[in-house]
Amino acid sequence: MIRKVGLAPGSAIYTGDIAIHDPKMSVIVYGSRHVQINEYDLYSDFENASAEIDNETKSWIHIEPISNQDAIWKLSKLFGLHSLVAEDVLSVSHRPKAEEYEEYLFVVLKYAVYKEMELNFYQITFVLKDNQLISFADNSPERFKEIKKRLEKEDSRIRKEGSSYLLFSLLDFIVDHYYLVLEELSNEIEELENEIIYTPTKKSIEHIHALKRTLINLKKSIWPMREVVNVLLRSESIKPEYKIYYRDVYDHVIDIIDILEGNRDTVSSFLDIYLSTLSNRMNEIMKTLSIISTIFIPLSFLTRYFGMNFKYELLLESENFYTGSNILMISIPILLLGYFKWRKWF
Amino acid sequence: MIRKVGLAPGSAIYTGDIAIHDPKMSVIVYGSRHVQINEYDLYSDFENASAEIDNETKSWIHIEPISNQDAIWKLSKLFGLHSLVAEDVLSVSHRPKAEEYEEYLFVVLKYAVYKEMELNFYQITFVLKDNQLISFADNSPERFKEIKKRLEKEDSRIRKEGSSYLLFSLLDFIVDHYYLVLEELSNEIEELENEIIYTPTKKSIEHIHALKRTLINLKKSIWPMREVVNVLLRSESIKPEYKIYYRDVYDHVIDIIDILEGNRDTVSSFLDIYLSTLSNRMNEIMKTLSIISTIFIPLSFLTRYFGMNFKYELLLESENFYTGSNILMISIPILLLGYFKWRKWF
Amino acid sequence: MIRKVGLAPGSAIYTGDIAIHDPKMSVIVYGSRHVQINEYDLYSDFENASAEIDNETKSWIHIEPISNQDAIWKLSKLFGLHSLVAEDVLSVSHRPKAEEYEEYLFVVLKYAVYKEMELNFYQITFVLKDNQLISFADNSPERFKEIKKRLEKEDSRIRKEGSSYLLFSLLDFIVDHYYLVLEELSNEIEELENEIIYTPTKKSIEHIHALKRTLINLKKSIWPMREVVNVLLRSESIKPEYKIYYRDVYDHVIDIIDILEGNRDTVSSFLDIYLSTLSNRMNEIMKTLSIISTIFIPLSFLTRYFGMNFKYELLLESENFYTGSNILMISIPILLLGYFKWRKWF
Amino acid sequence: MIRKVGLAPGSAIYTGDIAIHDPKMSVIVYGSRHVQINEYDLYSDFENASAEIDNETKSWIHIEPISNQDAIWKLSKLFGLHSLVAEDVLSVSHRPKAEEYEEYLFVVLKYAVYKEMELNFYQITFVLKDNQLISFADNSPERFKEIKKRLEKEDSRIRKEGSSYLLFSLLDFIVDHYYLVLEELSNEIEELENEIIYTPTKKSIEHIHALKRTLINLKKSIWPMREVVNVLLRSESIKPEYKIYYRDVYDHVIDIIDILEGNRDTVSSFLDIYLSTLSNRMNEIMKTLSIISTIFIPLSFLTRYFGMNFKYELLLESENFYTGSNILMISIPILLLGYFKWRKWF
Amino acid sequence: MIRKVGLAPGSAIYTGDIAIHDPKMSVIVYGSRHVQINEYDLYSDFENASAEIDNETKSWIHIEPISNQDAIWKLSKLFGLHSLVAEDVLSVSHRPKAEEYEEYLFVVLKYAVYKEMELNFYQITFVLKDNQLISFADNSPERFKEIKKRLEKEDSRIRKEGSSYLLFSLLDFIVDHYYLVLEELSNEIEELENEIIYTPTKKSIEHIHALKRTLINLKKSIWPMREVVNVLLRSESIKPEYKIYYRDVYDHVIDIIDILEGNRDTVSSFLDIYLSTLSNRMNEIMKTLSIISTIFIPLSFLTRYFGMNFKYELLLESENFYTGSNILMISIPILLLGYFKWRKWF
Repeated sequence: MIRKVGLAPGSAIYTGDIAIHDPKMSVIVYGSRHVQINEYDLYSDFENASAEIDNETKSWIHIEPISNQDAIWKLSKLFGLHSLVAEDVLSVSHRPKAEEYEEYLFVVLKYAVYKEMELNFYQITFVLKDNQLISFADNSPERFKEIKKRLEKEDSRIRKEGSSYLLFSLLDFIVDHYYLVLEELSNEIEELENEIIYTPTKKSIEHIHALKRTLINLKKSIWPMREVVNVLLRSESIKPEYKIYYRDVYDHVIDIIDILEGNRDTVSSFLDIYLSTLSNRMNEIMKTLSIISTIFIPLSFLTRYFGMNFKYELLLESENFYTGSNILMISIPILLLGYFKWRKWF
Repeated sequence: MIRKVGLAPGSAIYTGDIAIHDPKMSVIVYGSRHVQINEYDLYSDFENASAEIDNETKSWIHIEPISNQDAIWKLSKLFGLHSLVAEDVLSVSHRPKAEEYEEYLFVVLKYAVYKEMELNFYQITFVLKDNQLISFADNSPERFKEIKKRLEKEDSRIRKEGSSYLLFSLLDFIVDHYYLVLEELSNEIEELENEIIYTPTKKSIEHIHALKRTLINLKKSIWPMREVVNVLLRSESIKPEYKIYYRDVYDHVIDIIDILEGNRDTVSSFLDIYLSTLSNRMNEIMKTLSIISTIFIPLSFLTRYFGMNFKYELLLESENFYTGSNILMISIPILLLGYFKWRKWF
Repeated sequence: MIRKVGLAPGSAIYTGDIAIHDPKMSVIVYGSRHVQINEYDLYSDFENASAEIDNETKSWIHIEPISNQDAIWKLSKLFGLHSLVAEDVLSVSHRPKAEEYEEYLFVVLKYAVYKEMELNFYQITFVLKDNQLISFADNSPERFKEIKKRLEKEDSRIRKEGSSYLLFSLLDFIVDHYYLVLEELSNEIEELENEIIYTPTKKSIEHIHALKRTLINLKKSIWPMREVVNVLLRSESIKPEYKIYYRDVYDHVIDIIDILEGNRDTVSSFLDIYLSTLSNRMNEIMKTLSIISTIFIPLSFLTRYFGMNFKYELLLESENFYTGSNILMISIPILLLGYFKWRKWF
Repeated sequence: MIRKVGLAPGSAIYTGDIAIHDPKMSVIVYGSRHVQINEYDLYSDFENASAEIDNETKSWIHIEPISNQDAIWKLSKLFGLHSLVAEDVLSVSHRPKAEEYEEYLFVVLKYAVYKEMELNFYQITFVLKDNQLISFADNSPERFKEIKKRLEKEDSRIRKEGSSYLLFSLLDFIVDHYYLVLEELSNEIEELENEIIYTPTKKSIEHIHALKRTLINLKKSIWPMREVVNVLLRSESIKPEYKIYYRDVYDHVIDIIDILEGNRDTVSSFLDIYLSTLSNRMNEIMKTLSIISTIFIPLSFLTRYFGMNFKYELLLESENFYTGSNILMISIPILLLGYFKWRKWF
Repeated sequence: MIRKVGLAPGSAIYTGDIAIHDPKMSVIVYGSRHVQINEYDLYSDFENASAEIDNETKSWIHIEPISNQDAIWKLSKLFGLHSLVAEDVLSVSHRPKAEEYEEYLFVVLKYAVYKEMELNFYQITFVLKDNQLISFADNSPERFKEIKKRLEKEDSRIRKEGSSYLLFSLLDFIVDHYYLVLEELSNEIEELENEIIYTPTKKSIEHIHALKRTLINLKKSIWPMREVVNVLLRSESIKPEYKIYYRDVYDHVIDIIDILEGNRDTVSSFLDIYLSTLSNRMNEIMKTLSIISTIFIPLSFLTRYFGMNFKYELLLESENFYTGSNILMISIPILLLGYFKWRKWF
């Protein structure tokens, strides 16, 4: 991650990873009866792309990935965005937030992907104007396919409604995706739980710790979402008749936070459980060792006692004594085992 | 649980388990002098059921289970519900909430059942109109029998009053049921407490953990209840003269939360107690081992020393030396036991 | 405890233990110059008792115990109380609360008694009217003697002032009693502290846990008190000139909560201290065992080595070798003890 | 501590320890050009002292100690104080608070002294009138010397300004003294930290626990201070031009709370560190024991095996066998030590 | 740190370390077309420095270090600052804060530097007037170079805008520097994590504890920053058109707090992980010891048994018996190892 300490504010520098796709801009002009999608490469075709921009027509402009920082910077000027907004678009490690500007609403969100025990976030930023929605997405496998499909379906509600409804659909899509992430995490938590209770290994500590960190990261991206949707609910850029939909998204965010906190509560006691299981094992090992030791150590003493090289010990030559000492050696372990049984050692 | 990422909002999909009963709709028309209950099967008898719907008469319409999603969807249209409401009715893993719509009040609640150490929630949703209460219940053993009985009793208050009082009665019923759940949990906590203090086993960790999770789940369903009742208290759909009853329910919810938090506080130290008990046992085992070892190891050395094959050792042939070494061997354990006693090892 | 799931709200059922006294009603009519106390048995003398009730005269009516639920129910009708209030009076496991009704103020409090390591709560409910104070007390050894004494003293302030001052006096009495409970608990905490640091036993876990539970219970009864006094401070039923007294009670409640939280903080680390003490003991035991073992095990090997039955070992017959090996055997423990000393094992 | 359960509110009873000084009252009449200090013994000279009281002249009246409860009671009447205020003055275990009365402002503070690992609080109460400041101090070594010196210095600001500035100076003095206490505590925390990490002993648990309690007590006295200064900032008794000074005191209180909470955070992990250090030591001891045992136990077996009294063992008589078994016995410890090294046991 | 208990408030005493540089005052007069920097030594050149002060021209006056307390005191009078402000400027261990005075805005900030595992704070105070920014910096390597460079660049925005924008630039610089500190801390946390999981040593406890303290200190300096920026956002001294920039700084502060809290959450479980790892190691050691002991102790008994000096034991002379006992001695370890394998001990 590149840091920009000391630079002038509003310096537009892309802070993400190197892009795996070519930066593209899709312009989707839609209405209840028509939909038209044009796609431009931001490197080779920037002229046409910028010519296309028209702040009047009802449309959705989606730019992904945003690795071409100069193109983004120029486009943001064409869109009439503040330089701080352009900076936030390019700085991909931002906290989710929603800010109301005079002519548009600016929203920063995180799209969460959990795969092979790794949690990744892709930043998506939205600029909502009266008639237009502009979205910028960090470099990642293409998303919003479902939404695009719905846009292509004739008579779909999404085509009839304005840009606030489109923003809601995308928001709903992003928020609902957190459920998938949480479900996978819940499965993993359950597996880990079984592992630490029944077959704890040295690796378990790492698993617990990795899971904790994942949950902390998830928390960092979902908690601010609540505030974001709250701002949207109070915003004047969202038409009142759509507020009910945003309230629904708000409920989902709260629900996700609830599940997440439940998971965190659950995982927070895993290290203690792990320690208890280890202690249990230690107890078992020590019990076995102790039982065997305490039985054989006195026995050994007897054998050694009789093995001393005192010439005087005539007793050793008597048969009765031999028998007697054998009986003694058999009875000692039996008595001790009985004592341990009584103390409930095993 | 079925997730609906990317679907249009308001998609009505039943997300519960497969129903164990046939979906039924009961229409209960009541007044201070009469009560009439009609029941319809939503599969075979949907026509009659929908014909019955009449948004004017004072009545209670109860639908249970809600597994027939198409019927619910059609009914909700007949009741004049928003598509998001219909979606919430069918999505059974919702968080308790109360939302005010223009023409009705929508409430989502959880009915908790604790049986054989398993905590289950059944979702019940209410739509309160001026004259009518509509309730949808997730698939479960029939409930509200007590309320129905009261409705059948002549001159009962519930028959005289309007739908807000009926909603209160049902709410009160659902909330009071949490007391039963908490009582069973308290018993279990007490049992577990005895177990971990007096006879801890390997299984105890699992019990503690399961109990913790149950309490987390319970918390997740009861905490939002407070907010729900708060919304009802402020709602204009509830007539002012009934507010006092809802305040009573609010007190109960707070009381339940108090008890629950007390239980959580109690259980949260169980793992520590368990660890202490294990440590205690370990200490005891080690003490026994140590006492026996420290007594016999020096003794054994002596026997071994006298057992060396030095031909030179003429001492071994003297009777006094034999007696003396026997006295030495008897005094060593006595001295060591005295020392351990003094150190309070046993 | 009896639970009333499914019953009509306002069902008056006594949920306390079986009474140890006969239910009595004391009617105390007082003024600056006179005081008159009449006592009625609510079983045998209910007629006279109810005849006595007169909502005009400045008086204090105290009913204790409240085990006769029918009498309470009838009396509450005579006093003009709401059925929910009557229900709360009889349901003795209620949370402290204060509720303003149109014609009276209703207050539920807990009187705490700590005796022989057991914490008991007795519920006391107050109904404050303009001229009258009605109090209902759960079944317990007679209380308020001090207050009654003050009432009997001529020219005492309590006789001159109205019912809000009387309520304050009783409230003050109940709140101050918590100090006594906390003092006893503090002593016990100190004792337990010494126990777990200096002479921890298996019983200590139980003591710690019992103390924790007691503190949780105390918290559950004192925290809501703050809200109760707050409601009283804002209430219009309390005359402004008495507000200063209630503010004083409020300070005491806050003070009690402070002390309680301090105690909870203190006790919360007891289990850790206990574990540390156990670990310390274990360390000591293991050190002793280890020192003795590590000294004698090598020595034993030597004796055994020399005890092998090799016929070839002519060395064994030399006197020098015997002396040398004895020196070796004496120097090994000395060296090892020095090493342990250097490692600060003892 | 004397508790007054059941007494009439406003009962003035001194609850502190027996006084070590004679109760004195200093009357300090000051102005920009003059200062005059008169001192009266409250036992022998009460008549003159009470004659001195004059609620008009700009003056500071300081009473210390307050052990003569009757004198305090009479004086408070002369000062025109409410009986609850007089009660609070005498009850020395009060929580810091500030209360606005019609004609004066009443402030209760705690002066903290930390000496020889013991934290003591002395209660100081202030009554601020338009022209006058009255202060009551619990029995302790004389304080406010610095302030008195400043008053005696000509042209000092404190002499020019009114009583609110004097109160501020005293408040500032009391608050700043907490810094000294915290500094001493910080030193002690650092020492304890070194102790538990490098040379933990059995005593360490006690130290940790004592420190924790001290911090809890300190918190109990400093947290309410924030509220006190807040009340003063909003109070009309403090002239607006002095508010800026009280804001400065407020900053200091917040700063002290910050330092205190930092210290509490630090100390809260000490028991865990202590446990870790103990575990570390145990591990070391067990490693030494294990290494020595696992090396010598197999060796011993061999010696014993060769020491069996089988007559048949002719091998024992061969020289090669003797050499071979010696090599075997030398190689076993070397191999095991190599194995332990590889496992990083030491 | 020097404490000033008992001194008059507003006493200006420098509480920092001895300065490593000579105290200098830079006067930077700038405009969109010009910039002029004059530097004065506050010891040798104080006359010229004070002559330079002119509260009208648009300029930035930077004083660093502030070790010459008399010069600072005189300058603050020339700048027209309140004596409490001058005191705060010199007292370098202040909490970040922002205070609005009638004619200027006063801001105290902390510049964090993390180097070689040590966290240092340097206090920087700002006085913002309409046209002028005055800054005082604690003794440290020269800072704000980047800002000065930007000021020297023609046509830079910073030169065109007024003093609120300059303050923002400096604030942004200071806040962004926390990211660098957090990045270094994150690296260290990761390293420590690997250490305690894979190669825990005795030193690890110290590292964990030192890291915790660093995070506590960082928290103490960054948390109040939120409030500071909040005050600035509400302040009238900041022109409305610049508020958007301060909102950006606010976002960064929140972001830093988030990262910091995430780190604290992560580190807070390190001691538990460490304990678990230690327990794991102990378990392993004990297992090895137990396996070897439990195998050889019974074997040894047998050898000893056969080594007893009973003359009667004719068996010892039979070859079959010798073979049989050898088989027995071989089969015992095999059986025990099988048992341990089955119990999953290794």
